Amino acid sequence: MPLGEFDLIERFFRRASRRGDVLLGVGDDAALLQVPPGCALVAATDTLVEGRHFLPGAPPRSIGHQALAVNLSDLAAMGAEPAWVLLSLSLPEPDERWLEGFAEGLFALADAHGAELVGGDTVRGPLVVTIEVLGFVDPARALTRRGARPGDLLYVSGWPGESAAGLATLLRGSSSDAPDDPLVTRHLYAEPRIALGRALAGSATSAMDVSDGLLGDLRKLCAASGVGATLELDALPISTALVARHGPAECEQFVLHGGDDYELLFTLPADRSLPHEPAGLPRMTRIGRITAGSDVRCTRDGAEVAVPGGGYDHFR
Amino acid sequence: MPLGEFDLIERFFRRASRRGDVLLGVGDDAALLQVPPGCALVAATDTLVEGRHFLPGAPPRSIGHQALAVNLSDLAAMGAEPAWVLLSLSLPEPDERWLEGFAEGLFALADAHGAELVGGDTVRGPLVVTIEVLGFVDPARALTRRGARPGDLLYVSGWPGESAAGLATLLRGSSSDAPDDPLVTRHLYAEPRIALGRALAGSATSAMDVSDGLLGDLRKLCAASGVGATLELDALPISTALVARHGPAECEQFVLHGGDDYELLFTLPADRSLPHEPAGLPRMTRIGRITAGSDVRCTRDGAEVAVPGGGYDHFR
Repeated sequence: MPLGEFDLIERFFRRASRRGDVLLGVGDDAALLQVPPGCALVAATDTLVEGRHFLPGAPPRSIGHQALAVNLSDLAAMGAEPAWVLLSLSLPEPDERWLEGFAEGLFALADAHGAELVGGDTVRGPLVVTIEVLGFVDPARALTRRGARPGDLLYVSGWPGESAAGLATLLRGSSSDAPDDPLVTRHLYAEPRIALGRALAGSATSAMDVSDGLLGDLRKLCAASGVGATLELDALPISTALVARHGPAECEQFVLHGGDDYELLFTLPADRSLPHEPAGLPRMTRIGRITAGSDVRCTRDGAEVAVPGGGYDHFR
Repeated sequence: MPLGEFDLIERFFRRASRRGDVLLGVGDDAALLQVPPGCALVAATDTLVEGRHFLPGAPPRSIGHQALAVNLSDLAAMGAEPAWVLLSLSLPEPDERWLEGFAEGLFALADAHGAELVGGDTVRGPLVVTIEVLGFVDPARALTRRGARPGDLLYVSGWPGESAAGLATLLRGSSSDAPDDPLVTRHLYAEPRIALGRALAGSATSAMDVSDGLLGDLRKLCAASGVGATLELDALPISTALVARHGPAECEQFVLHGGDDYELLFTLPADRSLPHEPAGLPRMTRIGRITAGSDVRCTRDGAEVAVPGGGYDHFR
């Protein structure tokens, strides 16, 4: 017997509420939610399309993970604490195994960050997943793209480029899921930097998540802040997994132009130290400096070099 | 020259902010928003898929209108005041004329309700539009599906069934846009009942918007409230436009099973009067009564009659 829309929501997406601030969750016309006093609401939405953001036949668990992760990453970039999730799922068939895997990936990540699914919509159509996340931040401490100032130091978290290299591995067709490949795993299950974003809130002068490539995104950050930057190519963090698989030039390409690692690009005044917490924060690498003007320059061994290409653009 | 994703957002979807509660709108990783003290946040999302929720070749202005209207209707059903909108747009080509029309329909309706577009995502893919609306309500006055009690009177607003009849007209291929046909216009540009929802807040015991057909949605309302209902078929409001085009049995089918008029189905205690305001509220028709138990019965001339069929289900 085929599953109906309401059975489907009931079976795969309705769970007991765990948050006291959800007055009404899945099952009514809309969710009723309580934002803590003094906090601003932070809202982001991102869409994944089959064949564009994930490969046809990608593990459904990874699709559920990615659809939420890309949104949580936007909250991380604002220094926000995630709270609530809405899911719009257009899918061709109510395939139970697919839905089980998808829900598993989605809920595992939601639970890891204390976020709760409070509403959504399921429709029949091409495989397109849209998620909206809602969270909170003290508005005086929120991170934006706008506050970088000349003299600020430029940092990136973790290991950018791994996800793009993992995708390249999958596209070469080595394996459709390659469970043991660290780059493929990074591509399918990259972790949004929520803890880092919250640690940077009130301290970093600007931040954004790297979604369309480090260099292109740096240009956007600089444009939003009305500044320029010098990016030191020698300083880019290149992971051992990347080095093991690719030559130096290829590694640099992945780091500069790859997206979807959910790493954070951020700036700190030169006299402010990096956040340090007992546990849980990723490596942070200083990769350059904010400058006056509007040019984003790349240097190697102190000399300027031309690096073509910007960020990924869905319509170019 | 093809439009890039960022030009596209800049050109069609970025406007000066008109609301003082938008701390940060389109253009950063997420929006920063200020919920008024004492209010609960109300959040809903709905997706429209080409060929499923609107006909291929439908006027882009109507798609922009519908995508927002179906969401605002969810807020109306909660008695909420709309505030902010997020848009996720998957589209095959960045067609400028299509985008102009779509944005026009979206913004006209948003402006009519004081709602502001604060974020979103544009991706290339099949034509799928997901909108999320956020609004406020005093949590003590919020409308839900859960509060109907035996003895309450059952009402519906306006003229349900017109939109489905308009769609039937389009499907018969009389005209692809039929600008002067009142039923087609109702289908393409039905108005969400925001003013009515707000007038009912704190007064109606339950409410929902009719999206999958009046009878099927009444069953959902009764299930959520743990009650039954008697629906008086003779009392159903049938518009003159509907009567002019269809026989009595067909009219009843449209009213019972048609969706997407954004009418509100609601219950009031028998001793409570309908809201009346100087202007702006639609006709409200008493169509039945809430009963104990869990059965939803239809009557004609006081005698029970069997009415097959429930609501629309995307996966049946």
